[in-house]
Amino acid sequence: MTVFELRRKLEELRQGDSSVDDLLEYLRDYPYQDLDFAKIDHHRPLRTGFPEVVLGRGKTPQQVAAIVESLAGRENPVLVTKTTESTHLAVMERTPRAAYHPLSGTIVVPTDNPLPATEGVLIVTAGTADLPIAEEARITATLMGCPAQLVSDVGVAGLHRLLGSLEHLRQARVIVVVAGMEAALASVIAGLVSVPVVAVPTSAGYGSSFDGLSALLGMLNSCAPGVATVNIDNGFGAGYLAAQINLMGS
Amino acid sequence: MTVFELRRKLEELRQGDSSVDDLLEYLRDYPYQDLDFAKIDHHRPLRTGFPEVVLGRGKTPQQVAAIVESLAGRENPVLVTKTTESTHLAVMERTPRAAYHPLSGTIVVPTDNPLPATEGVLIVTAGTADLPIAEEARITATLMGCPAQLVSDVGVAGLHRLLGSLEHLRQARVIVVVAGMEAALASVIAGLVSVPVVAVPTSAGYGSSFDGLSALLGMLNSCAPGVATVNIDNGFGAGYLAAQINLMGS
Amino acid sequence: MTVFELRRKLEELRQGDSSVDDLLEYLRDYPYQDLDFAKIDHHRPLRTGFPEVVLGRGKTPQQVAAIVESLAGRENPVLVTKTTESTHLAVMERTPRAAYHPLSGTIVVPTDNPLPATEGVLIVTAGTADLPIAEEARITATLMGCPAQLVSDVGVAGLHRLLGSLEHLRQARVIVVVAGMEAALASVIAGLVSVPVVAVPTSAGYGSSFDGLSALLGMLNSCAPGVATVNIDNGFGAGYLAAQINLMGS
Amino acid sequence: MTVFELRRKLEELRQGDSSVDDLLEYLRDYPYQDLDFAKIDHHRPLRTGFPEVVLGRGKTPQQVAAIVESLAGRENPVLVTKTTESTHLAVMERTPRAAYHPLSGTIVVPTDNPLPATEGVLIVTAGTADLPIAEEARITATLMGCPAQLVSDVGVAGLHRLLGSLEHLRQARVIVVVAGMEAALASVIAGLVSVPVVAVPTSAGYGSSFDGLSALLGMLNSCAPGVATVNIDNGFGAGYLAAQINLMGS
Amino acid sequence: MTVFELRRKLEELRQGDSSVDDLLEYLRDYPYQDLDFAKIDHHRPLRTGFPEVVLGRGKTPQQVAAIVESLAGRENPVLVTKTTESTHLAVMERTPRAAYHPLSGTIVVPTDNPLPATEGVLIVTAGTADLPIAEEARITATLMGCPAQLVSDVGVAGLHRLLGSLEHLRQARVIVVVAGMEAALASVIAGLVSVPVVAVPTSAGYGSSFDGLSALLGMLNSCAPGVATVNIDNGFGAGYLAAQINLMGS
Amino acid sequence: MTVFELRRKLEELRQGDSSVDDLLEYLRDYPYQDLDFAKIDHHRPLRTGFPEVVLGRGKTPQQVAAIVESLAGRENPVLVTKTTESTHLAVMERTPRAAYHPLSGTIVVPTDNPLPATEGVLIVTAGTADLPIAEEARITATLMGCPAQLVSDVGVAGLHRLLGSLEHLRQARVIVVVAGMEAALASVIAGLVSVPVVAVPTSAGYGSSFDGLSALLGMLNSCAPGVATVNIDNGFGAGYLAAQINLMGS
Amino acid sequence: MTVFELRRKLEELRQGDSSVDDLLEYLRDYPYQDLDFAKIDHHRPLRTGFPEVVLGRGKTPQQVAAIVESLAGRENPVLVTKTTESTHLAVMERTPRAAYHPLSGTIVVPTDNPLPATEGVLIVTAGTADLPIAEEARITATLMGCPAQLVSDVGVAGLHRLLGSLEHLRQARVIVVVAGMEAALASVIAGLVSVPVVAVPTSAGYGSSFDGLSALLGMLNSCAPGVATVNIDNGFGAGYLAAQINLMGS
Amino acid sequence: MTVFELRRKLEELRQGDSSVDDLLEYLRDYPYQDLDFAKIDHHRPLRTGFPEVVLGRGKTPQQVAAIVESLAGRENPVLVTKTTESTHLAVMERTPRAAYHPLSGTIVVPTDNPLPATEGVLIVTAGTADLPIAEEARITATLMGCPAQLVSDVGVAGLHRLLGSLEHLRQARVIVVVAGMEAALASVIAGLVSVPVVAVPTSAGYGSSFDGLSALLGMLNSCAPGVATVNIDNGFGAGYLAAQINLMGS
Repeated sequence: MTVFELRRKLEELRQGDSSVDDLLEYLRDYPYQDLDFAKIDHHRPLRTGFPEVVLGRGKTPQQVAAIVESLAGRENPVLVTKTTESTHLAVMERTPRAAYHPLSGTIVVPTDNPLPATEGVLIVTAGTADLPIAEEARITATLMGCPAQLVSDVGVAGLHRLLGSLEHLRQARVIVVVAGMEAALASVIAGLVSVPVVAVPTSAGYGSSFDGLSALLGMLNSCAPGVATVNIDNGFGAGYLAAQINLMGS
Repeated sequence: MTVFELRRKLEELRQGDSSVDDLLEYLRDYPYQDLDFAKIDHHRPLRTGFPEVVLGRGKTPQQVAAIVESLAGRENPVLVTKTTESTHLAVMERTPRAAYHPLSGTIVVPTDNPLPATEGVLIVTAGTADLPIAEEARITATLMGCPAQLVSDVGVAGLHRLLGSLEHLRQARVIVVVAGMEAALASVIAGLVSVPVVAVPTSAGYGSSFDGLSALLGMLNSCAPGVATVNIDNGFGAGYLAAQINLMGS
Repeated sequence: MTVFELRRKLEELRQGDSSVDDLLEYLRDYPYQDLDFAKIDHHRPLRTGFPEVVLGRGKTPQQVAAIVESLAGRENPVLVTKTTESTHLAVMERTPRAAYHPLSGTIVVPTDNPLPATEGVLIVTAGTADLPIAEEARITATLMGCPAQLVSDVGVAGLHRLLGSLEHLRQARVIVVVAGMEAALASVIAGLVSVPVVAVPTSAGYGSSFDGLSALLGMLNSCAPGVATVNIDNGFGAGYLAAQINLMGS
Repeated sequence: MTVFELRRKLEELRQGDSSVDDLLEYLRDYPYQDLDFAKIDHHRPLRTGFPEVVLGRGKTPQQVAAIVESLAGRENPVLVTKTTESTHLAVMERTPRAAYHPLSGTIVVPTDNPLPATEGVLIVTAGTADLPIAEEARITATLMGCPAQLVSDVGVAGLHRLLGSLEHLRQARVIVVVAGMEAALASVIAGLVSVPVVAVPTSAGYGSSFDGLSALLGMLNSCAPGVATVNIDNGFGAGYLAAQINLMGS
Repeated sequence: MTVFELRRKLEELRQGDSSVDDLLEYLRDYPYQDLDFAKIDHHRPLRTGFPEVVLGRGKTPQQVAAIVESLAGRENPVLVTKTTESTHLAVMERTPRAAYHPLSGTIVVPTDNPLPATEGVLIVTAGTADLPIAEEARITATLMGCPAQLVSDVGVAGLHRLLGSLEHLRQARVIVVVAGMEAALASVIAGLVSVPVVAVPTSAGYGSSFDGLSALLGMLNSCAPGVATVNIDNGFGAGYLAAQINLMGS
Repeated sequence: MTVFELRRKLEELRQGDSSVDDLLEYLRDYPYQDLDFAKIDHHRPLRTGFPEVVLGRGKTPQQVAAIVESLAGRENPVLVTKTTESTHLAVMERTPRAAYHPLSGTIVVPTDNPLPATEGVLIVTAGTADLPIAEEARITATLMGCPAQLVSDVGVAGLHRLLGSLEHLRQARVIVVVAGMEAALASVIAGLVSVPVVAVPTSAGYGSSFDGLSALLGMLNSCAPGVATVNIDNGFGAGYLAAQINLMGS
Repeated sequence: MTVFELRRKLEELRQGDSSVDDLLEYLRDYPYQDLDFAKIDHHRPLRTGFPEVVLGRGKTPQQVAAIVESLAGRENPVLVTKTTESTHLAVMERTPRAAYHPLSGTIVVPTDNPLPATEGVLIVTAGTADLPIAEEARITATLMGCPAQLVSDVGVAGLHRLLGSLEHLRQARVIVVVAGMEAALASVIAGLVSVPVVAVPTSAGYGSSFDGLSALLGMLNSCAPGVATVNIDNGFGAGYLAAQINLMGS
Repeated sequence: MTVFELRRKLEELRQGDSSVDDLLEYLRDYPYQDLDFAKIDHHRPLRTGFPEVVLGRGKTPQQVAAIVESLAGRENPVLVTKTTESTHLAVMERTPRAAYHPLSGTIVVPTDNPLPATEGVLIVTAGTADLPIAEEARITATLMGCPAQLVSDVGVAGLHRLLGSLEHLRQARVIVVVAGMEAALASVIAGLVSVPVVAVPTSAGYGSSFDGLSALLGMLNSCAPGVATVNIDNGFGAGYLAAQINLMGS
């Protein structure tokens, strides 16, 4: 419902083409419709190709399968994160096109109208154990039209490896840093570049990493400005945010 | 040192105007110089008007005064955050132009060449107690060329106030949400708009807010994607990040 | 022992039908009996149909089966929460009427005298992963005579969905909000209605949700008054409390 | 704005007494007005005498004074919690009727139309150090029309004192339990009565009470059902919730 | 009310000197009276000279002064812990005999009938900073009839000092170990003796001692059995427990 | 080495039966021997029947089997705590007399010389889920000569059950309270009796019980003095401490 | 690239054997090469036999196998920590020489040029459950040329056992202390010797050991100076650090 | 007591110059004396110039003054850490030579026999706010004979500054890294050098730095090996450890 449509409805009333009760009925949902506008406005990125995203964890395979089936049209891709192979089997029964990415534990139902690709997102990992989360970020950003480059295993224990990738770092418009343990990589990269850094702490590590708490606190307390932190292991959130930022002005 | 200078030096060697040892000596600092490039590259935003920023907390007034004096040229503004009026007095002795903002506890030394203003940053607070941190964000973004609008006291306890500001929310290119307690405002706003939300948890609250921990966890666990979290009470970091994002594509 | 019985005993003494020593012996347990009164008073809701409730976790299947058998009369229903299908098998051997609800992991032994239904409890979930706990609340409230309505998946990431249910929210006498992650839903609903909100943080989420800590702190620090919080994943406690409140004045 | 007013406005348009543009202008705020309905609905308890409440902590005396002045009409009382005597002085300059309660640190501006008193709220404290929070609850409930009885210093270390007050406990319709340290009082009382218990953990204690964390966890993990917990030291929230519950069915 | 009084009342009834209703009235408070027995039973140690103890923290000087005045007879001593010199001044106005111990921050009102002294309690501190808490324990135990020996500054950093006091350790019937930081002293002593060790973690230390948390966890996780832990800085509780144990069998 | 042996050695030297170097060699280990005395003194309770105790957790079945074999003489019993049935199988191969207690997960190798039984230890549990830890305590105390009585399931949610056991409580010389969740039982019992209470927090519960943290903090912050706390789920430590205390003066 | 190679390249330019552009191309990676120098300098210990170390946790067996294959030359040993037998099977397919140490869960690929052995590292454990981590430390130090002595099960519960090993302690140049629970052993040993103590907290224990947090805090807060702490269960880090220190001046 | 004295005593016995009882009496304290040897052995570094160190925090000025007076001979220096100017005034009254260092809050009483200086310790700080702790480390190391170099303000936000100091880093034998916030500097430096890194987390920062917890966890979870962590703000411990390591082999 738009203001033009509203004007037309009011004109109909003024001209006797509709009754006061018709208008009242029409307006009954107006706040809702207005908020539906909000909904539509909020969902605009989704309509323009931003993926519908389902968090697989905490849902039964049957629930995930039903949700995916209802979302899976041809217009938009569907993404399920933090799921398992057995859930994928349940999804496949209703949505055979659904593909499973085992490293990141994601299910993707592709769209017929993929978004045009916009370069600019770079994903960097500190170590091999961070790859599943980095993959989740990469798949998310890709579905949102930002196929991301991935530079992995450049943790600060061997700074030269990172500095060897300076060129990549400086060409990016936004960088996702995926790191566990002390997650120093986020601060170091944010100190080297002038673009926003989206930091994803991971639960890689053991002992006093406390399942990602050390990485989370490290990234939140970065001495370099320009670091935005998301939840531990939230590759999806990072990929989403990076794509949002990357698409600005493009 | 530039590649032009390097080419010249190499030409000198080739033409016999300098010795191999001269070159070796010259190149001894090359990595440093190259990393000085990195420094310059990293500092480019600063040169283009991004403020030098000093965290006042943990430094003596004398230390702050000396740092501000050394930074305060005419080219760039200087910003000191989380400082006090008595530190301002010490700063004033050496840098009389320095102004103090009591609400946010910041000192600003203005520049003669302020950046051209780029609209797009909106700062929203949940309550009055979040204003000092919001001010810190606003001052930071302003110095970086993004004079921000401020909508305050629209916490979710009175949702209609927030929804009454939907127009503002939807015109912004990036939104800084400053909220303490449970900080639900970040999730709610991220669910209403399609632009990045920079979330600043504040220490406003008491008891089990645990000095901002509840707000921090709330923002990190936002059920709406597109939320980037910074440290508790880190208005500076949020303003910096918001300006970085806002200036993309501008 | 009732006051009638006591009066009869005293009459016996007065009429010489018993000795002082008989009375003293009888009264030896009087405090206990009086506290048995307390017990009866405390158990009044149970006698009026409030279910006996057994926390299944931490007990062996055999222990649960024995407890259920001793509780399962025809007068009151029996409820076992946070239990498993294999415990249900053990329970069935002694109490074949016991039914298992797999989504919430509860066992219910129905009563022949169910309570008359009192409308007024509404249970709202933020997401699908909160359903098991919501179900635990719904079953509990239902056994206490308050068959609850369930509105699910109206988390604040899509505020219009929640606002689309405003009618339901405003007709409720008490609302149970079941939410994980940042659990902003509790604050938002409490800001929209004037009835008590019973908030159940769930362990849905991952990373810095820290098994429900983020949701718990979010609900405890609600900026909207009128929010009562129970333990993480404590659907039973919320259903119980909601029914208690709903039955007031009814 | 009501549906009646809306119908009238539409009739005016139909009858040519107003233009389409008039209606559009009128409807411009309709969603807001509709949400203003939400606001009014939400604020209904306030209009019926529920106090406007201002959290004093984190606001400057000037901010509090300005807020109080804007709220302080004759219709509703105003309540400021967790404030200080010096803030009261600032408030008095603009609102001389404002009274200060030093034990609880609250400011109250009375109303000319106090609500009719509804009995039923009982506030119980474990110890003397819990009194300030209990007072905050009592003042809040009183302003909401529920003048509460206060039974203090009946902590479980001397169970007979509590049991000596059983009569009071059993006559209440809702009980606020205010306790620090291990806060066992909430569980014990909830086990003795059949009405809802609103539990307020306090920061009374030292060492591993961790500023109220021990009391908070104790109350959340109550083995007795029927316990609703609010934030540490949140006397206001408890008084509000207790009044809400007490007024049900009254 | 005693069993003798009860027998008399019953005799009156049997002999027609009172009515059944008189008895019912009299017995109305019987549980309370019986629980008053419980009170007396519980208070027996107090009657035998165990001090009434008031936690000073969280109470106003006036509250403390009023409580002390009401408790201070000649029969029992009164002890106020964790209080200050200014509170002592307020107490002195009503109870001039009250003495202040500045090191431990305690007020003591002596009794005319001190308990006979029973040897056997040894208090050991790891360092000088633990002395205030050790003093609190010593004063408590002394008032309970167990004047304790104090061996201070024998922390495990200089094990020979501790081993030089082995004679003392082995003659004690119960040992209070007062230690901050890592509190290893409790484990080491418990490994050297066969008597119970009451461990008091103190907040001495800084940084990751987290106000006594490190000491608390250290003592709770002692690899040597026979260690009973009390709250951080709870010298009173340790002195009380040590006296209780020491008086067993004496 | 005893003082008698030392005297003999010195006599040999005085009489020329050994050289100064022989003595020096012999005395080389004197400190160790003296500390072996310490060992003997420390181990005196063990020699008098206190069990050798092995923590099963963290050891392989083979390690446990070897340790048990080396300890299992006829003189003293051997106790293994927190172990499993499969470890018992490994132990049985070398020590066939070893018996397994499945509820508590303990292995006991009995002695031919059990200690004479000393009454006085009472073990009380709040709920059924606390039984495994209570059993661990009971077995430990029994092996130390203190066969303990067990009163179970008297949590404060039904206070009358606890008060119905007052007689038991008042006859005990030391009481072990085993409770999870909020563990209010420890405070309530300590307020009812005058003997030491050894409090064992258990990990029974869920959500914000945080694996026993709520119970631990509750017990440490008991408002009733006379409570000694041991580690979460440390039934062994509690039984050991209770027996130590119970045997004093016996 | 070495300085010799650089000199040769410059000579080529000077002698006309290469062009300025050749040099520029060659120098393009100079910073990287220079930082490769840093790499080489950093990796010097590795080249001299310090092992390449792979953290097994968080990597798939295939990832570990591929990494080991690429590292496993004849020159240096390869170490994989915190891995499993099934990963070892995957590694063996590509690198048959790889050996598995089940106690510590490590894989070692030996080198043909083991380092000469340097005595001086002593590893001490508090209990049997600490052995896996101690083994990890021992294997690491051994591969770095420091075959370490192991003294196990000398926890402070039986101090005489530790003191019986004083000779070993005093001959060591650096001591690794591996302990869980309260980890008092680190402080006690640091108080007895004058050499650095590398403290490894382990997750041995249960309940409030909180997976090693108690041991970690205990070691960090050691009252004896000279204690260096590494992560919980980080035997590798401790062995590495101990070898680094031990090789100083050797 | 030395072995020479012991030999003499034994000779006296052998020659009849003393009795067996004399020897027994003499040997009564032998373990203590032997442990006094241990003490002496332990204190050897102190005798050789390692400073006596007093933690000022938690002690009264009078206590500190008395301890300093008793320690302050001419032979060894005395160091008081974490103290204040007013304590210095109290110390000066008894020990006028005592000097106060305001930046680090330390008191030093110099010795007449300073140790010969051994180069090799480098102290690096991330920021200006870390200087007080760095100074504490520098003063400690200096008193132990290792006058340390200080490189300050080279945090990773400007990596080029750190890399500009590579020369310093590579010449050090041991490096103390002092950093707050996320403390990434420790990992980065440990990745650049082959010598041990002693990491001191500081409480510099705010919000989720949680008084140094973020820095502590960051350093403990360093992805680079060779990092030894001490307590938050423990400059003394780091300086002590660095000197211990630096003096090895010198």
